[in-house]
Amino acid sequence: MLRDGVRRLGPLALILLACSGSTGSGEAEQPRIALVIHGGAGTIRPENVSAEREAAYRSALTATLEAGIALLHEGASSLDVVETVIRRMEDDPLFNAGRGAVFTAEGRNELDASIMDGSTSLAGGVAGVTRVRHPITAARAVMEKTEHVLLAGSGAERFADAQGLEMVDPEFFWTERRWKSLERAREREHVGASGGAAAAFGTVGAVALDRDGRLAAGTSTGGMTNKKHGRIGDSPIIGAGTYANSECGVSSTGHGEYFIRFAVAFDICARLRAADLTIQEAADQVIHGVLHEAGGEGGIIALDASGNPALVFNTDGMYRGYALADGQLNVAIFKDK
Amino acid sequence: MLRDGVRRLGPLALILLACSGSTGSGEAEQPRIALVIHGGAGTIRPENVSAEREAAYRSALTATLEAGIALLHEGASSLDVVETVIRRMEDDPLFNAGRGAVFTAEGRNELDASIMDGSTSLAGGVAGVTRVRHPITAARAVMEKTEHVLLAGSGAERFADAQGLEMVDPEFFWTERRWKSLERAREREHVGASGGAAAAFGTVGAVALDRDGRLAAGTSTGGMTNKKHGRIGDSPIIGAGTYANSECGVSSTGHGEYFIRFAVAFDICARLRAADLTIQEAADQVIHGVLHEAGGEGGIIALDASGNPALVFNTDGMYRGYALADGQLNVAIFKDK
Repeated sequence: MLRDGVRRLGPLALILLACSGSTGSGEAEQPRIALVIHGGAGTIRPENVSAEREAAYRSALTATLEAGIALLHEGASSLDVVETVIRRMEDDPLFNAGRGAVFTAEGRNELDASIMDGSTSLAGGVAGVTRVRHPITAARAVMEKTEHVLLAGSGAERFADAQGLEMVDPEFFWTERRWKSLERAREREHVGASGGAAAAFGTVGAVALDRDGRLAAGTSTGGMTNKKHGRIGDSPIIGAGTYANSECGVSSTGHGEYFIRFAVAFDICARLRAADLTIQEAADQVIHGVLHEAGGEGGIIALDASGNPALVFNTDGMYRGYALADGQLNVAIFKDK
Repeated sequence: MLRDGVRRLGPLALILLACSGSTGSGEAEQPRIALVIHGGAGTIRPENVSAEREAAYRSALTATLEAGIALLHEGASSLDVVETVIRRMEDDPLFNAGRGAVFTAEGRNELDASIMDGSTSLAGGVAGVTRVRHPITAARAVMEKTEHVLLAGSGAERFADAQGLEMVDPEFFWTERRWKSLERAREREHVGASGGAAAAFGTVGAVALDRDGRLAAGTSTGGMTNKKHGRIGDSPIIGAGTYANSECGVSSTGHGEYFIRFAVAFDICARLRAADLTIQEAADQVIHGVLHEAGGEGGIIALDASGNPALVFNTDGMYRGYALADGQLNVAIFKDK
């Protein structure tokens, strides 16, 4: 009730209430809006990224954060913001999700996504869809319109179609850049070379905290270049690619098999719950500890219930950024910038 | 080194070493073999199960445990034993896995399975296969023969076929009992009735601890009667349906969506790691606490690294049993027997 009143009175009242300590939240910090996003992790080094491409990524990440934090300021739910910013990245060919997705060994784009509402612990995901323009929206429809959490393949597609979601010809997802990646991967495979995998994965994701203190997280991907046999990675898997509860939200990117085997997104939240750790420390333990020791490469973005962000990766780089209630907005690609 | 010596000397040496305290394991208990299995949880009440059917289940569970514990005594790996006992239950029409699987809304049997080796943290799973006689063996092949963890649909099937696994006509899985369940579910749906879901799910699973102290866990299912849209439940999902590491192994059965949303199998292991809990206490917290509060029905079987079993469910019953190193063998179906 009080919180509803605060929402109607606007941000100023929120600040006054926070200062007066009359919200009844006791020792807990007042929730504040926050948004953190990623566009994939991997062997992203300054020498591998042209100045032009670097500028394009920075610009895309900045515009996405600005759009998302504005929505949060206006009172949008974290779930809406996560869906909106991921749709935007799905439409952007720079990122391996939606349009711009990488190709499977069979030359197709098979898309995966998941979303979780931390305030209800409801979740949804789709795996291996080829005609849904915005897989993250299909994931949300699974969460909201079915009793299920994960739908795969043609069944997921028929469901999305029946829900009236935007369906496209599979060619919609084709981009020359990703097709060339597949050709290079096939060539490497042909000559028996290994490696290159770290460069070939990518994902987009977002975690948001809204004015009502609700966390949500989502992830969307085109998977791994040259993937085979109907492989499902971590992105549509709740607990691996995406997790959110009332204390913690996480979206992962990286070598998905490791993220599944170590339930990376859930484990960060479990460590936060179990011990007196910050979200940064919990994420560091999993990404630089557990995952690194196992040989797993990738990263995560996360928020805690107070809006503290963590952006942690054990690769050369991760496309990433955060925007906070106080106007801070930060975008980075490489280890330190 | 010492442990290899113990294995060569046999069980007597193991007991002597354990008593002399000379194994260097400090305060830790000596690993001992153990096996725990389940055949599904749900609305299983004495009044719903005929004496004949009850006897058939008790007999099947007992024979499965006897076969499995004998293999462990002979020195078989926990991974081999988990696969072997699950294959046996997949072949038994009593259980909703392999032959005897329930039907989807489209009248098909779509099978899911996963397996995890706690000693290596490697894992594999298949989802939505329709022609693989033993999905658990396909899951193990994914773990051992690919870089992936989860394969789905026709891709998973082509992979299993290429690996030389036994493929069958989809009709192989047909049983009259499960077909009638589908007809009843369709009828309930037609008249707009709800419920019955709790009775309609089922799964088989096993967790084993071998002489070398290695834990493994596996799960196999036909899913939910009348499931739609390529739904994937928790059974093929590492962290939800199955988890194993060096300290803990878990296999789940129940309303799969809840098991995914709360990463049930992983969470039990995370709680064991984080706090001074027994495996029983960790499982109780998740099944009777988290899951019950969310309205999720089902159960788990688990072992810790000392071979202590936990068999926990919040439904009326769970087909279940355990066999321990000292010869104890226990089988139960209902709440208390």
